Amino acid sequence: MLATKHQNIIDNAVKANHERAFYAQYPEHPKAYGEEAHAKGVQSYQQLLGKPFKSLLQTNETGWSGEEVSPYTREVLGITYPEFAVNDLVKKATAAGKSWEKLPVAERAGVLTETLEKIKDYFFDIANATMHTTGQSFMMSFQASGPHANDRALEAIATGYQEMLRYPPTVSWEKPMGKASIKLYKTFRAIPKGVGVVVGCSTFPVWNTLPGVYANLITGNPVIVKPHPRAILPIAIVVSVIQQTLQDNGFDPNICQLAPDSSKNLITKELCENPAVKLIDYTGGSSFGGYIESLPGKTVFTEKAGVNSVILDSVKDLDPVIQNLAFSVSLYSGQMCTAPQNFFVPEHGIKTEKGEISFNEVVQHFRDAVAGLTKHPKMGAGTLGAIQNDETLERAREARQLGGKVILEGTPVENEEFSNARVFAPTIIEVTSADNNVYEKELFGPIVLIIKTKDTDHSIQLAKQMAVNLGAITCGAYTTDKSIKEKIIDEMNSVFTPVSLNLTGLIWVNQHAAFSDFHVTGGNPAGNASFTNQEFIVKRFVWVGNRELAE
Amino acid sequence: MLATKHQNIIDNAVKANHERAFYAQYPEHPKAYGEEAHAKGVQSYQQLLGKPFKSLLQTNETGWSGEEVSPYTREVLGITYPEFAVNDLVKKATAAGKSWEKLPVAERAGVLTETLEKIKDYFFDIANATMHTTGQSFMMSFQASGPHANDRALEAIATGYQEMLRYPPTVSWEKPMGKASIKLYKTFRAIPKGVGVVVGCSTFPVWNTLPGVYANLITGNPVIVKPHPRAILPIAIVVSVIQQTLQDNGFDPNICQLAPDSSKNLITKELCENPAVKLIDYTGGSSFGGYIESLPGKTVFTEKAGVNSVILDSVKDLDPVIQNLAFSVSLYSGQMCTAPQNFFVPEHGIKTEKGEISFNEVVQHFRDAVAGLTKHPKMGAGTLGAIQNDETLERAREARQLGGKVILEGTPVENEEFSNARVFAPTIIEVTSADNNVYEKELFGPIVLIIKTKDTDHSIQLAKQMAVNLGAITCGAYTTDKSIKEKIIDEMNSVFTPVSLNLTGLIWVNQHAAFSDFHVTGGNPAGNASFTNQEFIVKRFVWVGNRELAE
Repeated sequence: MLATKHQNIIDNAVKANHERAFYAQYPEHPKAYGEEAHAKGVQSYQQLLGKPFKSLLQTNETGWSGEEVSPYTREVLGITYPEFAVNDLVKKATAAGKSWEKLPVAERAGVLTETLEKIKDYFFDIANATMHTTGQSFMMSFQASGPHANDRALEAIATGYQEMLRYPPTVSWEKPMGKASIKLYKTFRAIPKGVGVVVGCSTFPVWNTLPGVYANLITGNPVIVKPHPRAILPIAIVVSVIQQTLQDNGFDPNICQLAPDSSKNLITKELCENPAVKLIDYTGGSSFGGYIESLPGKTVFTEKAGVNSVILDSVKDLDPVIQNLAFSVSLYSGQMCTAPQNFFVPEHGIKTEKGEISFNEVVQHFRDAVAGLTKHPKMGAGTLGAIQNDETLERAREARQLGGKVILEGTPVENEEFSNARVFAPTIIEVTSADNNVYEKELFGPIVLIIKTKDTDHSIQLAKQMAVNLGAITCGAYTTDKSIKEKIIDEMNSVFTPVSLNLTGLIWVNQHAAFSDFHVTGGNPAGNASFTNQEFIVKRFVWVGNRELAE
Repeated sequence: MLATKHQNIIDNAVKANHERAFYAQYPEHPKAYGEEAHAKGVQSYQQLLGKPFKSLLQTNETGWSGEEVSPYTREVLGITYPEFAVNDLVKKATAAGKSWEKLPVAERAGVLTETLEKIKDYFFDIANATMHTTGQSFMMSFQASGPHANDRALEAIATGYQEMLRYPPTVSWEKPMGKASIKLYKTFRAIPKGVGVVVGCSTFPVWNTLPGVYANLITGNPVIVKPHPRAILPIAIVVSVIQQTLQDNGFDPNICQLAPDSSKNLITKELCENPAVKLIDYTGGSSFGGYIESLPGKTVFTEKAGVNSVILDSVKDLDPVIQNLAFSVSLYSGQMCTAPQNFFVPEHGIKTEKGEISFNEVVQHFRDAVAGLTKHPKMGAGTLGAIQNDETLERAREARQLGGKVILEGTPVENEEFSNARVFAPTIIEVTSADNNVYEKELFGPIVLIIKTKDTDHSIQLAKQMAVNLGAITCGAYTTDKSIKEKIIDEMNSVFTPVSLNLTGLIWVNQHAAFSDFHVTGGNPAGNASFTNQEFIVKRFVWVGNRELAE
């Protein structure tokens, strides 16, 4: 029994979900997985190139297509994926779901944990696939698509497991009525809502996809994964492992299907609008996200775009702060939904233990740190990774046309290993608080804005306004003043934005840890979902109670 | 400390919510509240008639109005209620909410339980007010608006209390990094979504209102109660007691405001569309409910109309079944959202221990039981109560025009105590399964349809179709066959409809007990909410986590 085999993992995850202290089922360091794993992963990845991807256990394809291009080599991967008719996918999902939903949740949890244990063996394959589709560095590719994604999946399994066991499956209800009583035998069933679709994005094709996949599966819903056509391979490997594990254990692999499409023949709308599809998880741009949220009769979980702010008020020592922020904006070239974009700095500068530092000095310091990091021969290219697509590169190249004063001009950066890589360092632009036409929008990629404000109250007001109007997933803040700290937390939390305070060293605002940090809150326009709070789970099924007169 | 004073009540309610066995904090029998309480309640009620209602602690009214008419005396109550400008209500709610949300949830739970304890002293006043606005019998008025409503309120308090204590308010997070580690100090806050509006209905002005009110209040949201203009008094008394209790304990009474309006000047849309209003609970018709659900940027909980079915397959003994069903359709003249409307009976009749009983015999038996009950001099008027309004009466009077064969014609019934009472016995109409134009709609009030089907499979199929298309809140079923029982449960549960099986004696499909039966499921068109599952609570606030580098 897989439920018994993995009970310990599940129990620990349930406990970790509650305690929210540091916890990881899957170590994030590649070395934890053996010396040979890395080389083997590269080899496995290379063997997939230029061929049809045949590891899925799905049948009845209508054709094959593939259009992935490595942001590192700028060459097509040449892998093709099977395409399926939407009706066929939905029909198979519905059929597969019928027996899946009958399985006790403890058994589903066991099987699903087994899939994670099997995925673990492919972490390095997935890492290489992620690197050459998203442009992430190897290390980020490994961690985000491997252990971190698995941990978030386990978090969803554990939350679902606990929620579905919340009420007793049967209960004897006896109402005293004077001398007699009325006895009812009651049953409580958690009924899954229906077929789930998870729409992936091109920058985090696994990390952003697995929570929805496992949240659907643990609650008894079959799932169809619709990857971004530019980043299919990483999640295709994951789905193929899930399917193989399901089949090996006697389950229908169609409980979890992949639905690849191509930019010439996108199927997302047709898939989402299918009446049998009741659940949609979506990661991506706000405009399509708005369409998804507007679909009637669907339960929808979105992570859309937001504008993340950093509020600089006062620091002990400026240098480690600036180093930390320079890394935050450079990491994967600002292509993280958690990356800071707008830096609010008071015109009178900021206080430090060594005295006041003027606005211009702060800006100059930040400029130097970003330039130093991104042009550093050993650190630069590795931190930046590569730009996922040409649209983002184009926006970065034309950043100076946004307006304001260009403090640092973004430039191509050489990657020693991949001479063709699409690497571009951040542009830093200084604007005034009146330039809201410049900073009041999301500028996805390596573009950073420094906004000169009257004072910290003004900074808070603007950061709050961004969160209300455009949404925010994170907010960084630096202050040594206790009352200002409380004010920043109160004000940003009131618009459902989490605050990271005074981060320096090896921890950055961009990072959200499974089992502890909720990801997105669902409270502002950045998305209506949160990994993994109760809402992310309980909206996927319905409690229904039945009663029978006891004899 | 009220939290300490009521900790026992809260702990018991949390436990009862989980166990779902019989539990009641407030006994449902009037006698439990003393011998003199009844007479005192009548007196208190009569003293309110013909005057402005001055017990609310709200100020700045723009006028006074009232249009309630007793379904028993057919006379206007003559009570006027203060009207307020929507902006004024929302402004006061927002201001009052600021300190309320800062209160620890345990303290909120204590204060709210105290309000329930104070409401208890007014159960008889509220019962008379309910009787003379809704037309319910005294007993139903007492139970539904008194102990049952209080129990559902306590259920919401307990669920909210537990959900908001789910995560530790602070946690130390330490990530090992080889020889060193990263330490973060994290805080988790449950941020209320904003001002809540609860829109009440004219038939259950307290029972359907309190869950939303207390769900909002326990999760830190201020609430504005918008009663139906034809049934203000019962909830006005409740809100005035809540306000007095809040004020007596040092809280702003505007945390819970009443917003009476009149049919000439309805404010519901203006109230719900106000941008500061983030939460809406609604009970009422499907058309307005659809509008409420379509409002962008709102978290909405609805209980709309549905069509409830009874599936008759086989019984041990027909008589107690028919008696039970006759009572179910007569109770409060079918004006309960849980009342059965469509009875599906196979054309070949039903099996009993004493042999088969033909379709026509079943129909005749049912007809006789309903006629016997409703015309019974002692039982009839008391069971039927009175029709809340003339529109429902008109529909009942014209029922024969619906089509089909009239089996029992509805007639006025005399109420000995109130000679003027608007009492009308049910009409029973027999139709074929082809007459879906007759039975595929909600016929609120004393109208019952018997639908002749091919067999029980056909009955199940039609009952399921009603639930999918029109929604259903309950389904009654009678069968002695185990596999048919499982099939009915499976099929009806798959469309999120709870099944009550083989009820006879003093328990009816219409009843939903707090702490055990979920009310509405949120899964079909009958409404998107359920008293009180997790979703009813967790959608009212947002978990936000903050992090600070630990020194």
